[in-house]
Amino acid sequence: MGAPVCVPPAELAARIANLRRLLAECELDAALIVQNADLYYFAGTVQQSFLYVPVAGEPTLFARRVPERARRESALAAVVPLASQRDLPAAIVARYGGTPARCGLELDVLPVLQARALESLLPGTVFQDVGTGIVRLRAVKSAYEIERIRAAATLFDELYARVPPLAYEGMPENELAGLVEAEARKLGHEGVIRMRRFNQEMFYGHLLSGSSLEVATFLDTPMGGEGLSAAVAQGVSRRRIGRGEPVMLDFVFVTGGYMADSTRMLCLGALPAAARRAYDVTLAIEAAVCAAAKPGIAVEQLYRLAVRMAEDEGYGDAFMGHGPTRVRFIGHGVGLELDELPVLAMRGGVLQEGMVFALEPKIVLPGLGAVGIENTCVVTASGVRRLQQAPEEVLEL
Amino acid sequence: MGAPVCVPPAELAARIANLRRLLAECELDAALIVQNADLYYFAGTVQQSFLYVPVAGEPTLFARRVPERARRESALAAVVPLASQRDLPAAIVARYGGTPARCGLELDVLPVLQARALESLLPGTVFQDVGTGIVRLRAVKSAYEIERIRAAATLFDELYARVPPLAYEGMPENELAGLVEAEARKLGHEGVIRMRRFNQEMFYGHLLSGSSLEVATFLDTPMGGEGLSAAVAQGVSRRRIGRGEPVMLDFVFVTGGYMADSTRMLCLGALPAAARRAYDVTLAIEAAVCAAAKPGIAVEQLYRLAVRMAEDEGYGDAFMGHGPTRVRFIGHGVGLELDELPVLAMRGGVLQEGMVFALEPKIVLPGLGAVGIENTCVVTASGVRRLQQAPEEVLEL
Repeated sequence: MGAPVCVPPAELAARIANLRRLLAECELDAALIVQNADLYYFAGTVQQSFLYVPVAGEPTLFARRVPERARRESALAAVVPLASQRDLPAAIVARYGGTPARCGLELDVLPVLQARALESLLPGTVFQDVGTGIVRLRAVKSAYEIERIRAAATLFDELYARVPPLAYEGMPENELAGLVEAEARKLGHEGVIRMRRFNQEMFYGHLLSGSSLEVATFLDTPMGGEGLSAAVAQGVSRRRIGRGEPVMLDFVFVTGGYMADSTRMLCLGALPAAARRAYDVTLAIEAAVCAAAKPGIAVEQLYRLAVRMAEDEGYGDAFMGHGPTRVRFIGHGVGLELDELPVLAMRGGVLQEGMVFALEPKIVLPGLGAVGIENTCVVTASGVRRLQQAPEEVLEL
Repeated sequence: MGAPVCVPPAELAARIANLRRLLAECELDAALIVQNADLYYFAGTVQQSFLYVPVAGEPTLFARRVPERARRESALAAVVPLASQRDLPAAIVARYGGTPARCGLELDVLPVLQARALESLLPGTVFQDVGTGIVRLRAVKSAYEIERIRAAATLFDELYARVPPLAYEGMPENELAGLVEAEARKLGHEGVIRMRRFNQEMFYGHLLSGSSLEVATFLDTPMGGEGLSAAVAQGVSRRRIGRGEPVMLDFVFVTGGYMADSTRMLCLGALPAAARRAYDVTLAIEAAVCAAAKPGIAVEQLYRLAVRMAEDEGYGDAFMGHGPTRVRFIGHGVGLELDELPVLAMRGGVLQEGMVFALEPKIVLPGLGAVGIENTCVVTASGVRRLQQAPEEVLEL
């Protein structure tokens, strides 16, 4: 069956120490963590639980379903079965001698009715958001996390090497996507792609060709795709891939909960000169941003640099989407969720060592489609390092 | 590219009329609908929008991203571009002459910080939950919706016919899942499986074999699976499928946003007699529940009937999971989300004509795995009709 990947105890301890500092800064007595990505981050399990973290003292994972499994998966010392949410106050009192006066909750993701249920269970407690702070903590990755993300990037590299025999002229996008996804599953892709923001959804990424690349959608992404219906409204359609059309494989590989986000260009035959020229611009932007990126730099500078380069080459209105549907960023943090910090945009803060982001300069070419590149990059003391090794040349088949 | 499936105008009008009745009952002046599944239900699009529905008068879709696409996808007459959420109050005033005194929001899914942002934008408005009421409305499907769900069930039937050549002895679960999923994509599976409840996640369903079938997890499902890591903690692992082991294909097919949930049993070789006996019991439970189900019956009666039959056959502690990890339902509503009403459980309400549920009697066999059947059923005036036609015999390969 294969043992589950366990997050090492020292890793959890360091993360919880950071959370405790956050609680102290916010003058909170404790936090109750419930969301899957955060639970996995702080407890190493997504079993239905309340992770109670006091500002001082040891955390406890109150596990509702399945406590035995939570105990097996989590390296935390205290995993306590909880029969029902109703029993939470008594369980906290039993372990800590009282309930917190001020408690943090992930109010950025927790639905109102769930928060209210907790409020009425703990009427003496004032709740305050810690989700926003947790997102900031999680933006800086440990060496362990960077290794996990690199593992995902390496699996993308392996996947990409398997793509050439799968594609043929006239193949519908959805069929090619299915075959690529089957290879990804074989390599251990976990399927579920977590996103933090409400209503944002992602399924593997987007495999789009030609005119599909010009279709924007509700997602905050430079390309959206038609999708198979208005109900999903993103990603592949049944459009048949033609000769000489740009095909963009924007793919999120997930392993051990961590993801790497990558984009490569394919073409059945030769990519038209106009697309090749624009693609070279996106490669030049990528190189320039990577060369400029380092700890301490304002993300805004990187964003401005990319936009200026696109404008200088005449792609001002086509950079990161088309016209009014352009998105106003050139990259986004990745980790346990696809929409992490930093956002490479205006007012995006300052880069720190250990941050990991997917940099994705992309250009729309009306009438032709779109081109672009994407690699997941880690900020090191001396600059940034790309985690994917897959060749960046257009894969002409 | 293929035109998107558009929800017909009369369909949207009928749904909005039901929502208006709900608003009147709750003494609300309007509702603001934002969640993807609800947006698609009432507006026919998931483009980032606020759907404003007054208790009397015409609804307006205030569309942020992408308004042109929302206009193309939605059959609603009024689709108004909205540059930013900040402009919402002025946009409401411009169209309706004022803001509502009492307004419904989907507080069962809306994160606290999003709700607070709306509250501070509309300080004169009192907000109240309508999400719970919407879930009840959506439990009763129209003829149009039943046709969409039937289309998903029929695609499952086609998919199932394609399974036999894909499986071989010693094949890891994740590889077989990938191949089945690729066929599903070819048939038009849309990928994204929406679930309403916080932290619940699903990726196609679960393809589990032998001992994997005995592993429960955080999900409220009878079987969970080990998953590829503790981060995802459900579904396939790399376990190799052996001869004579029960293999359960629990699969959610999604097309046009609507889903059908199905389970079939496979075996490389002959299923052991003990598993076959238990499987026959699940088939008998399915038949008995379907025979008893009709409009007006209390769901609790169906649940008790199923539990009693399992107990009578000696499977009391193994029905719908094992021991303390048993789930306390035998079926769940499906539609645009996988976790809709009715829940076939104690205190599950009364069946109504037009309800659609997946009935999934399953039995765990310690040391062997698990067996079970699942079909998506529609409640008609005279009883229930199963939407899948795929044979229920164990597929012995």
